Amino acid sequence: MPDSPPPAFAPLSAPGHYAAIFTRQRFPGGDADYDAAAARMVELAQGMPGFLGFESANGSGGFGITISYWESEEAIRRWKAHAEHQAAQVKGRQWYAAWQIRIARVERISSGP
Amino acid sequence: MPDSPPPAFAPLSAPGHYAAIFTRQRFPGGDADYDAAAARMVELAQGMPGFLGFESANGSGGFGITISYWESEEAIRRWKAHAEHQAAQVKGRQWYAAWQIRIARVERISSGP
Repeated sequence: MPDSPPPAFAPLSAPGHYAAIFTRQRFPGGDADYDAAAARMVELAQGMPGFLGFESANGSGGFGITISYWESEEAIRRWKAHAEHQAAQVKGRQWYAAWQIRIARVERISSGP
Repeated sequence: MPDSPPPAFAPLSAPGHYAAIFTRQRFPGGDADYDAAAARMVELAQGMPGFLGFESANGSGGFGITISYWESEEAIRRWKAHAEHQAAQVKGRQWYAAWQIRIARVERISSGP
């Protein structure tokens, strides 16, 4: 893996869209399976209507944050209900000691430099 | 550093509060200075009115996400305007190749297991 991969920002969509903030504490181990499943979920989300982008960071202690951005709450509901995503949510129970999801409406944006 | 620090979730505050989503791509190096400055910002935020919690994950490639949670947009404005935080924002230019901030209103929450 390269030391400095390209920046992993989501596009700066106009305010009024929604963020699905997924935080989780992983159990140790199973990295290859987990990484493959996570990559598949990104691929799947990218094909869903209303998908705007995503950002993810996984800390060394197993705590990670993934944020996906969507045009509407309805788009998030469809994503949550997708059959393959539902199966991954069930499988996630083996990976996560705990998780939280917050759905939030993006109201202001700034960036730099 | 321990392999598995305790989970780093923010408390699940009632919907209607605000999330300040800070994403950034760091330049390599300067880790000790950066970690000290980041820890000081957390300490400072925790003393601000309206602060509810924060979550942070730093990926191996220098891309990181920190989310702080606040009772109101006004609380975020006060935090942004704090003199020591302002100085850190200026200093941040030496650490960050790029950054984005999204202010979002939290509307729904779920968690498990």
